[in-house]
Amino acid sequence: MELINVFDYEMLAEERMDPVHWDFYAGGSDDEVTARANQTDFVRIRLRPRVLVDVSTCDMRTSVLGTPVSMPILIAPTALHCMAHPEGECATARGASAVGTLMIASTVATCTLEDIAQAAGGPLWFQLYIYPTREVAAGLVRRAEAAGYKAIVMTVDLPVLGNRERDRRHEMPIPPAPFVEANLVGVEKTGQEWVPLTWETVDWLRSLTSLPIILKGILTAEDALLAVEHGVSGIVVSNHGGRQLDSCVTGIEALPEIVEAVAGRCEIYMDGGIRRGTDILKALALGARAVLVGRPILWGLAVNGAQGVQHVLEILRDELQLAMKLSGCPTLASIERSLVKLT
Amino acid sequence: MELINVFDYEMLAEERMDPVHWDFYAGGSDDEVTARANQTDFVRIRLRPRVLVDVSTCDMRTSVLGTPVSMPILIAPTALHCMAHPEGECATARGASAVGTLMIASTVATCTLEDIAQAAGGPLWFQLYIYPTREVAAGLVRRAEAAGYKAIVMTVDLPVLGNRERDRRHEMPIPPAPFVEANLVGVEKTGQEWVPLTWETVDWLRSLTSLPIILKGILTAEDALLAVEHGVSGIVVSNHGGRQLDSCVTGIEALPEIVEAVAGRCEIYMDGGIRRGTDILKALALGARAVLVGRPILWGLAVNGAQGVQHVLEILRDELQLAMKLSGCPTLASIERSLVKLT
Amino acid sequence: MELINVFDYEMLAEERMDPVHWDFYAGGSDDEVTARANQTDFVRIRLRPRVLVDVSTCDMRTSVLGTPVSMPILIAPTALHCMAHPEGECATARGASAVGTLMIASTVATCTLEDIAQAAGGPLWFQLYIYPTREVAAGLVRRAEAAGYKAIVMTVDLPVLGNRERDRRHEMPIPPAPFVEANLVGVEKTGQEWVPLTWETVDWLRSLTSLPIILKGILTAEDALLAVEHGVSGIVVSNHGGRQLDSCVTGIEALPEIVEAVAGRCEIYMDGGIRRGTDILKALALGARAVLVGRPILWGLAVNGAQGVQHVLEILRDELQLAMKLSGCPTLASIERSLVKLT
Amino acid sequence: MELINVFDYEMLAEERMDPVHWDFYAGGSDDEVTARANQTDFVRIRLRPRVLVDVSTCDMRTSVLGTPVSMPILIAPTALHCMAHPEGECATARGASAVGTLMIASTVATCTLEDIAQAAGGPLWFQLYIYPTREVAAGLVRRAEAAGYKAIVMTVDLPVLGNRERDRRHEMPIPPAPFVEANLVGVEKTGQEWVPLTWETVDWLRSLTSLPIILKGILTAEDALLAVEHGVSGIVVSNHGGRQLDSCVTGIEALPEIVEAVAGRCEIYMDGGIRRGTDILKALALGARAVLVGRPILWGLAVNGAQGVQHVLEILRDELQLAMKLSGCPTLASIERSLVKLT
Repeated sequence: MELINVFDYEMLAEERMDPVHWDFYAGGSDDEVTARANQTDFVRIRLRPRVLVDVSTCDMRTSVLGTPVSMPILIAPTALHCMAHPEGECATARGASAVGTLMIASTVATCTLEDIAQAAGGPLWFQLYIYPTREVAAGLVRRAEAAGYKAIVMTVDLPVLGNRERDRRHEMPIPPAPFVEANLVGVEKTGQEWVPLTWETVDWLRSLTSLPIILKGILTAEDALLAVEHGVSGIVVSNHGGRQLDSCVTGIEALPEIVEAVAGRCEIYMDGGIRRGTDILKALALGARAVLVGRPILWGLAVNGAQGVQHVLEILRDELQLAMKLSGCPTLASIERSLVKLT
Repeated sequence: MELINVFDYEMLAEERMDPVHWDFYAGGSDDEVTARANQTDFVRIRLRPRVLVDVSTCDMRTSVLGTPVSMPILIAPTALHCMAHPEGECATARGASAVGTLMIASTVATCTLEDIAQAAGGPLWFQLYIYPTREVAAGLVRRAEAAGYKAIVMTVDLPVLGNRERDRRHEMPIPPAPFVEANLVGVEKTGQEWVPLTWETVDWLRSLTSLPIILKGILTAEDALLAVEHGVSGIVVSNHGGRQLDSCVTGIEALPEIVEAVAGRCEIYMDGGIRRGTDILKALALGARAVLVGRPILWGLAVNGAQGVQHVLEILRDELQLAMKLSGCPTLASIERSLVKLT
Repeated sequence: MELINVFDYEMLAEERMDPVHWDFYAGGSDDEVTARANQTDFVRIRLRPRVLVDVSTCDMRTSVLGTPVSMPILIAPTALHCMAHPEGECATARGASAVGTLMIASTVATCTLEDIAQAAGGPLWFQLYIYPTREVAAGLVRRAEAAGYKAIVMTVDLPVLGNRERDRRHEMPIPPAPFVEANLVGVEKTGQEWVPLTWETVDWLRSLTSLPIILKGILTAEDALLAVEHGVSGIVVSNHGGRQLDSCVTGIEALPEIVEAVAGRCEIYMDGGIRRGTDILKALALGARAVLVGRPILWGLAVNGAQGVQHVLEILRDELQLAMKLSGCPTLASIERSLVKLT
Repeated sequence: MELINVFDYEMLAEERMDPVHWDFYAGGSDDEVTARANQTDFVRIRLRPRVLVDVSTCDMRTSVLGTPVSMPILIAPTALHCMAHPEGECATARGASAVGTLMIASTVATCTLEDIAQAAGGPLWFQLYIYPTREVAAGLVRRAEAAGYKAIVMTVDLPVLGNRERDRRHEMPIPPAPFVEANLVGVEKTGQEWVPLTWETVDWLRSLTSLPIILKGILTAEDALLAVEHGVSGIVVSNHGGRQLDSCVTGIEALPEIVEAVAGRCEIYMDGGIRRGTDILKALALGARAVLVGRPILWGLAVNGAQGVQHVLEILRDELQLAMKLSGCPTLASIERSLVKLT
């Protein structure tokens, strides 16, 4: 069967993967109410397409923090890519480069950040967990700087791990053997002892590096304003794929209040539930500069390595382009708030 | 089994047709969210019937752009009727004539517009795609004029083809062999190169013909106002049967804002999801002058040719008449906005 | 199995009845959207119970147009009771009398109105169709007066018959052999030729009899005001059990606007979807003086004749009493609008 | 299988219990609309988590009417614990003590209040039915005082028993043999003759004891204000687990209007539908001082006696702690109204 949308990749990936590893990727926390809501919330938003606009060309090029990308679709940071494919994050990075977009590499990668940087032909950001100690995290930041990463994406919605019952039932450690957290080899881990995350931590990180800092996991206007006050360059509106606090608001739901509060003082991205080009178009209309895609990338990786990642990104790119054309939007700048109707 | 509603025709048509052809008729774009919403949005609207009005007679005669029709139910332009029945659009036209209403013949017909005109005993409009070139389209307009068509219905919501996954999975070309686009025999086609559609195109068409021009595929008050400014005679509020931009608003949803914006300066029709007389009554109450029916006509055609088309139209006519009588509306003029309640 | 609620009766009645006759009772028009909504609309309303009110006694006695009844639950007019039980409407009337409430006998009964009156120990109203001619109807009114009926309930929502597809598929005549319209034996019927119903018809009926007149089938404040102007004594807010105009508002939905418009100038009853005591309580809180129950009565009749009718009424009475006690309402007068919350 | 959430306990408890006894615990009244709504209403509320707050410690200790408890989760009064486990309420009390919280013992217990007090290492409140006579109830109050119970929880939503059809179909007496109402041994019961409950009863109870009085079963602001006027110390916003008036508002739905009306003049608790830590967090954000948990405690008891009760409480405690940490709430005082979004 030809694979023509991301759901085709989802089905095939589930067939091919170890069920325990699949569940790690697919699962959310508690009853997975939020993991599902991430997708269904998009259905409540309808598009108001404009017609008779010349869409014979459609320019999706943009930049994120000054870095040009071919489209407003980035690769979200996700963990343990070697569970999907032996080449892991290196393959993912090659897929991203092939379509000219940016990958956010995770602290919890199964390839080192240096190997990922070497494999990637394009720009990278580094997702940072302050974990297991500040010192270790500081080391990761220095390594990311050295390897040419262009920004630090600090995850702020994981002060502790969410209650992921699929993993608990499988008694799956993170990472499961034989996989390793490649960035943290040799680091002594201390299990449940988490480093407290506060706004002071952001200031500390700010003092540590000249790279732009993005906070990932903000869901309220209140916190977005604090982020601006603390001088961040970007915000990812996200509920961590429904894997942390179940029953919380979704990214697409929180986006409008955050866009309004921030009023252009930093860049705003969102993730969670993106499966179609129209989902992306809705997020852009509500004020996101770009979206991050997580699970679909892993499906592409599981099915066909770097080429699968590339194809999934191409599918979403083509769907976004089609949605823009069918909405009368030949450029990203022409995507206005009035394109969407919330119900 | 006696066929007593359009759903009976739907079931029987599906049984009888080639599944690939059936899917072409039945399918929508992407996840078909909008194709389904076209029907379910009617369920959210409830009627507020009036009683003790003399409905012993019920007059459904009206006119569209000055052309008298027996009822406010027209045949929407749909493609490739020969897939449903060997006599194709000619049979459809005969069915329309038999009940005294108007058919909108599609550019992408499997009978020539001249043959359709000859078969039809009643009025015709011609649906125009500017395709594959302006010159070809101009030729079609001249032929339509010569053949007695009374208006040009320019489709504006297909700058490019929607993502119809059923057809892509079947690898079905349009048209599939042995069918041909009868109006375009001998025209060299250039595949994906679409002629840009803009408001200037409307002006060009305006300059080309003295026939009234109707724009089909408008879903916003903003575009309806532009249409009025560009001197169109009519608007079809439509999402192309859910076959273009998935996740967009529905015709019945967009109708009120368009009716309000236009304020009588051109005629307004709607299509999408009409399956019952009460659906039609709701559209009329919300300000449509007439509705267009698409798929049910094809079901009638597939089951029983011209007679099937006629019967489907009669079913809808009788259901509309019954709905008008049970709502206390003996005339179209008596159908007021207060008849419907949006929830 | 002991029968403890009306749904138990429903299941058993369906088992025991001829499926064609069952479908006549159970069916609605078109897609039966409204027949279902009649029940589900009650679920959208929630009760706000009060506590610490002395409910050791609970008085449900009331009057309807001056006639005392033991409870605000009346028997709605329904047709053809002999399809449920050989004793037909006579058994139903005995069941009503046994619990001290009032039955509205239908024009389309399978027992004569005189026989019903003789069987009944309690008060009766006569439901009138102006059918097949005014003269016949006038005769029925005279007979109802002579037989002691206390009011005329003129049905106003059947200017023509609704589209009941179950009956059409069964090709069931009304009545099916061997049953007869007992009140109309010897009357020459003319099939589809309906007598026009208008407000003038109400005036004519008014001139014909000194009995109070109730209009059944009003669903808008506009018509309720007209009814008051035409001097009616009561209104039944009703959509005819979802058997006439499919997709219209429900009785419980229309009730508030009608209660507000009428402002006490006539009595207001409602029917449609009553299956539990809490449904009745909600209708009373929204301003109904009493409710009419239709299908559940037929289920009781089908299962156990007069005793089944009596038991169904007792079940609803006991449920209403329980609901009143659990809501802190020892009397009908204490049931206030604030008891319900519309969502 | 390891039991990791309360639903695991629910499944296992149902497997192990006598189906008749299970139905007594699980069932609601009438159609169980409210029993289900108690859970589904929580899904309509979404959390707005705050980030970058130091949650390395999370203090859930609080007090209820001055009595310290380890967490804002109390054991709701439920009847007949010996049906779940031979040690009955004594085991439940030991489970509560083990996690440092408070149990509300029911009048309808299968262990005497004195035995429960002896088994419990922690604080107890006594739930009081004024039943079967005031004199018996007064005796229970005196015994509760003597046994060290710290408050009287008067149930106000059971002026009569709700219509619990599961129990009626099983013809299950309360209690079923061989179980006894341990607190009422030797008391002559009079069946359906209920003692009228009024605000005067509250005053009488007030005069009888110096223990604080809590009213359980209030669902409106109106009654909450009356409760304050009558000098109560606390209110349990509750619909009795959906076992009394079906189709009424839920506790979580009624909570905001009651919190607003009371404005701090007494303590407010809620129960109904609590199954996850996030449910508890929502109730706290809407103004509850603590929640009461009913059925999940019985599931723990049925599966593993005192240890099962302890584990269920630990699960909910850990889930609440996790939810607080993931919401940026290190203390109960930091849980604000803005944490929840009603939809």
